[in-house]
Amino acid sequence: MPAKNVRLILFGAGKSRKKYKANKVILLKDIIESLDNPKIKEIRSLHKKKYRKKFGKYLIEGKRIVAEALEHGAKIDSIIISSDYIGDETYQESVLNSGIRNIELIRVTEKVFLSIAKTESPQGIIAVIHKEEHSLEKSLGKLPKYPYIVTLENLQDPGNMGTIIRTAEAAGVDLILVTKNSTDPYGDKALRSSMGAIFHVPIVEVEGMEWLSLLKINKIQVIATDLSATKTYGELDYRGGINLIIGNEGHGISKNLLDQADEKIIIPIYGNIDSLNASVASGILLYKAREKRGIV
Amino acid sequence: MPAKNVRLILFGAGKSRKKYKANKVILLKDIIESLDNPKIKEIRSLHKKKYRKKFGKYLIEGKRIVAEALEHGAKIDSIIISSDYIGDETYQESVLNSGIRNIELIRVTEKVFLSIAKTESPQGIIAVIHKEEHSLEKSLGKLPKYPYIVTLENLQDPGNMGTIIRTAEAAGVDLILVTKNSTDPYGDKALRSSMGAIFHVPIVEVEGMEWLSLLKINKIQVIATDLSATKTYGELDYRGGINLIIGNEGHGISKNLLDQADEKIIIPIYGNIDSLNASVASGILLYKAREKRGIV
Repeated sequence: MPAKNVRLILFGAGKSRKKYKANKVILLKDIIESLDNPKIKEIRSLHKKKYRKKFGKYLIEGKRIVAEALEHGAKIDSIIISSDYIGDETYQESVLNSGIRNIELIRVTEKVFLSIAKTESPQGIIAVIHKEEHSLEKSLGKLPKYPYIVTLENLQDPGNMGTIIRTAEAAGVDLILVTKNSTDPYGDKALRSSMGAIFHVPIVEVEGMEWLSLLKINKIQVIATDLSATKTYGELDYRGGINLIIGNEGHGISKNLLDQADEKIIIPIYGNIDSLNASVASGILLYKAREKRGIV
Repeated sequence: MPAKNVRLILFGAGKSRKKYKANKVILLKDIIESLDNPKIKEIRSLHKKKYRKKFGKYLIEGKRIVAEALEHGAKIDSIIISSDYIGDETYQESVLNSGIRNIELIRVTEKVFLSIAKTESPQGIIAVIHKEEHSLEKSLGKLPKYPYIVTLENLQDPGNMGTIIRTAEAAGVDLILVTKNSTDPYGDKALRSSMGAIFHVPIVEVEGMEWLSLLKINKIQVIATDLSATKTYGELDYRGGINLIIGNEGHGISKNLLDQADEKIIIPIYGNIDSLNASVASGILLYKAREKRGIV
């Protein structure tokens, strides 16, 4: 055993703790104490979109989402654990599983841990995940014959971004495209709102208009919501390959993109109010399309 | 003119500002400078549910929502204006209108204003609104023959509260019931999320189970969402008088209430995720019911 490593002895979990003594020995590196440690600095930088892009990684914080990442086979780079953390069941299982999968375990002091954490209660555990980056062409190749695609154009609110990704996964969407000027789906708040859906539905970042040409070549019907549309969302045929575009919260879908849409639809408002919340409108639309496409 | 009043001269608004000199003179009281002024203390107390209940009033902050309250005939008690505020179009129109309607105008120093304001950019204007409190019996009497009612039971997140009220107004709901253990629909965040819908759809606070008996006497079908239901939300007949119950974000609808429901339905999840966001689920359900009831 290298001198720089220490033994971490994990005891049996939860209610049955007393029955066990030690059921697993995992090698962990020394506890990192320096805020300026290069590895810690790199991890901390992942709170910024620029560095998430550069390193192709993002952070998730807290027991629940880390457990989900482990369970659903996300590409985990490393798991950071606070030395102050007194493990409970989920935590220990995470560590055990990560040991099995040869994920790097990084133990840090509470001070270093808090310098990385962004959430209010990070619960002593953070994971670094590799972004699964694919080209649109490759992604399209993996889809069903008549795919259900959603494009988020210039969406600005991270809460909406996460919630719409969550809703899309719930509605059985096959692929999400996110235009480059949108808020980052891998940012802290978007990830929290997505409730783990980010590990399931593939997401491709797109820019320019080439992606639209590619969809058109693949005979995918492009459907846009538009406040001046005369057709309502309930009147449309959503069968076949479709791409629903969801636009910016305040300004809707750009004129450029609207002009290219095969169909424009509106969700009617029956009361004395201007508009629906962006996540709610997306939910109504995504479930209507799912319903009219038939059960997956 | 009483000695305690000062003149406020308002100039023409917006682009046409140069064309006007002074188009209205409104009497305002002295600028309140003391943080301990009894009136200011009462207004400030309205951030707490307890005092909103005691005084039957609530606060709205910012130009847009104050303008909406004025436009839609909300019962405005008073308007508080910061002395530092340099009026623009909306602000001036608000003040002009309020003058016409004999609403009390309260000028305060910026320091006093900021001691009242809760939002990040209150924009120098806050209004105190009288809650429109009705009994359920009276409210039911004013509804259409086959009313569309929504009950929010033990809803905890103010953002969801406001967003669901907004969505209900958009879907043409006639009445909203809020159980007493829910977050207050008149709290700051709920009001912001409701986007002015609070001025349109009547809201009645209920407790115990009497309200349910009253609905049943009125032959209103009680529909509950339930994760163990076998019927999907698309299979139900929503015509006639209906009451959709939306439950707590984490725990759903209480067993007590579920047991009393005429119908239990579920919104299916097609992907690898546990649940939908509460506001999104409500939106899908509220619009499905509206669709199946026919156009209002």
